[in-house]
Amino acid sequence: MALISPSRRLRRTPFSDGVEAAGVKAYTVYNRMLLPTVFDSVEADYRHLKQHVQVWDVACERQVELRGPDAGRLMQMLTPRDLRGMTAGQCFYVPIVDETGGMLNDPVAVKLSDDRWWISIADSDLLLWVKGIANGWRLDVLVDEPDVSPLAIQGPRADDLMARVFGEDVRKIRFFRFGIFQFEGRDMVIARSGYSKQGGYEIYLEGGDLGMPLWNRLFEAGEDLQVRAGCPNLIERIEGGLLSYGNDMTDDNTPHECGLGKFCNTHTAIGCIGRDALLRVAKEGPVQQIRPIAIDGDAVPGCDRPWPVFANGKRAGQVTSAAWSPDFETNVSIGMIRMTHWDAGTKLEVETPDGMRTATVRDTFWI
Amino acid sequence: MALISPSRRLRRTPFSDGVEAAGVKAYTVYNRMLLPTVFDSVEADYRHLKQHVQVWDVACERQVELRGPDAGRLMQMLTPRDLRGMTAGQCFYVPIVDETGGMLNDPVAVKLSDDRWWISIADSDLLLWVKGIANGWRLDVLVDEPDVSPLAIQGPRADDLMARVFGEDVRKIRFFRFGIFQFEGRDMVIARSGYSKQGGYEIYLEGGDLGMPLWNRLFEAGEDLQVRAGCPNLIERIEGGLLSYGNDMTDDNTPHECGLGKFCNTHTAIGCIGRDALLRVAKEGPVQQIRPIAIDGDAVPGCDRPWPVFANGKRAGQVTSAAWSPDFETNVSIGMIRMTHWDAGTKLEVETPDGMRTATVRDTFWI
Ligand SMILES: Nc1nc2c(c(=O)[nH]1)N[C@@H](CNc1ccc(C(=O)N[C@@H](CCC(=O)O)C(=O)O)cc1)CN2
Ligand SMILES: Nc1nc2c(c(=O)[nH]1)N[C@@H](CNc1ccc(C(=O)N[C@@H](CCC(=O)O)C(=O)O)cc1)CN2
Repeated sequence: MALISPSRRLRRTPFSDGVEAAGVKAYTVYNRMLLPTVFDSVEADYRHLKQHVQVWDVACERQVELRGPDAGRLMQMLTPRDLRGMTAGQCFYVPIVDETGGMLNDPVAVKLSDDRWWISIADSDLLLWVKGIANGWRLDVLVDEPDVSPLAIQGPRADDLMARVFGEDVRKIRFFRFGIFQFEGRDMVIARSGYSKQGGYEIYLEGGDLGMPLWNRLFEAGEDLQVRAGCPNLIERIEGGLLSYGNDMTDDNTPHECGLGKFCNTHTAIGCIGRDALLRVAKEGPVQQIRPIAIDGDAVPGCDRPWPVFANGKRAGQVTSAAWSPDFETNVSIGMIRMTHWDAGTKLEVETPDGMRTATVRDTFWI
Repeated sequence: MALISPSRRLRRTPFSDGVEAAGVKAYTVYNRMLLPTVFDSVEADYRHLKQHVQVWDVACERQVELRGPDAGRLMQMLTPRDLRGMTAGQCFYVPIVDETGGMLNDPVAVKLSDDRWWISIADSDLLLWVKGIANGWRLDVLVDEPDVSPLAIQGPRADDLMARVFGEDVRKIRFFRFGIFQFEGRDMVIARSGYSKQGGYEIYLEGGDLGMPLWNRLFEAGEDLQVRAGCPNLIERIEGGLLSYGNDMTDDNTPHECGLGKFCNTHTAIGCIGRDALLRVAKEGPVQQIRPIAIDGDAVPGCDRPWPVFANGKRAGQVTSAAWSPDFETNVSIGMIRMTHWDAGTKLEVETPDGMRTATVRDTFWI
């Protein structure tokens, strides 16, 4: 592996000093910000995440803020998910599509009030699409990137740790809802959400000055819980079927291909820019889809480019994320597979850098 | 320095195999693609670039393609530079601004024909802004990211190397113009341009299949010219005053603040989305501006965040790029300095991680 060259362009976060002190070993770059990928080892981080509680610097999940009378209208233009039933205090996982139905991002939409939203984005400059749409359609809305940095608390002991810092009421927050809690006299949006299946919270920190105080308070409060610095874990996110935009899908794919049809209400999402384009695929279904695939044999190497997938020598799709799972004792992976070969139990061959491996399509992700 | 975690999201290029074989030591991430930053050492790469010829994988300079009857109109909506005099075959360095006059990117626009343009972008998803504007304004134009990967040939012997591969006519291409040349029977756009002051060319490779054949042919042809794999060089680009979007300026800055007022024709660029916002700054001038700053003392450490700049204890701006220059035997740097302190000769203090350093504003960049 090569080194990463530091520069201002690869932005630091309010928690970077803590991340460095905790001994981060590797980063990726996400929305032009540093995102830690390894502390101890990917496997040790994984075991710890499933047993204890971790604090994750996910400031790179930047917010696009919509404010003004047309904020709600604009939000609905961006996604085929019907937002009419959404109330302030809720978070929705929303595919964002262009006029062809191609995925531009898969963020979490946070409804702060009727005329104020945050869109907590994956790795693409969704801000620029939203600003272009708002400008071209002459909407009465302000669109910008506020100084908001999410910090995720994930793992089975997340509730205990958070209750110590924010009080017992934090336990009552329901999945994909948020409440307002105080820290050092300042309001913080805290949601029950996060990019793992181990449960936990996300604190949306406004401004950078309380970054290290918040980080340090969590570590002090959680010492006996064995709290550690962590990060989205490759193995656990594949086991859980959590997609990574730019990795498992791109703007070439529709939400339906990504298995996100359940988050599309193509008939009722009136105003959605990609609605016309998606009506047909919603009716007929996609011809390829994201699938969980178990790859046989020893641990596969890192997947840094699409691995071609074959069935009886004919191309059937590609794998874009893969890792050895200690818990399931197989290589877990995410692939985009053509409909002729996507049924559970279908035997495939995956071309890895180490050579061809046999593999099997599964019905569901592992966790 | 930490490692970079490989993933499909951080895209490889058609030249990545060559870059790896040449022993790349570090990368940055630019437009979600790998961009090499060091081969031998930044200083050794710098000396070689100024004496010989290098081949640079700058595939990360992605293209936004505009095609259709409204392509020219859309291009003018994006920039305050007057494009009426531009003919097919020319390249223009163009600030791109939003409706507030904030910089969204500083790409090279390549006019292929009246209804076909490439925008060779810096590090932001300009594609999304352009698609949003085209959609909102209902323009008759196709906007996408074609499979085009620039390869730069830079250094004093670039002409000699290119003439051997593409024929003597390549020497006749004028600065910021392009011609069409053949390689393996395929047309290639070749421009006299590039992100260095050492002279050279950029080959816009269409499709990936000829990436390694082209790379290898250049190395075979240039063996006696001591051709090497290289990359945009931090020291040389600062000496030359070549700005890096996201580093030296962001969407907070107007083109005038970036010293790009000479590329703005605010009065005649009719249709430019940011024109109204820029009229005032064009008339009155900016209150802060990009300046070359010599920082005294030994080599400064890497600049991975803005370094505050002071004059008599009062804040006067910030430095965002800095490096030791072997040729000028000083630390060269790029800063954004308030008008009260931007005159050449002004003495400043720069807060580096190593402590406060004295510094002087210069009149011009070093090369
Ligand atoms: N702030 C926040 N912002 C984010 C992410 C996050 O993690 N949290 N992650 C990225 C966006 N992508 C996802 C992908 C999956 C989920 C997710 O959580 N999915 C759940 C539940 C979805 C639901 O039922 O609504 C699942 O099990 O699939 C959230 C964001 C970037 N932005
Ligand atoms: N394809 C191409 N695409 C690019 C770059 C490039 O390098 N070449 N570089 C980035 C864009 N930024 C710049 C910055 C400076 C210049 C440049 O070359 N400036 C010259 C000349 C400008 C002029 O006179 O028109 C100068 O001396 O300032 C070009 C692109 C990203 N995209």
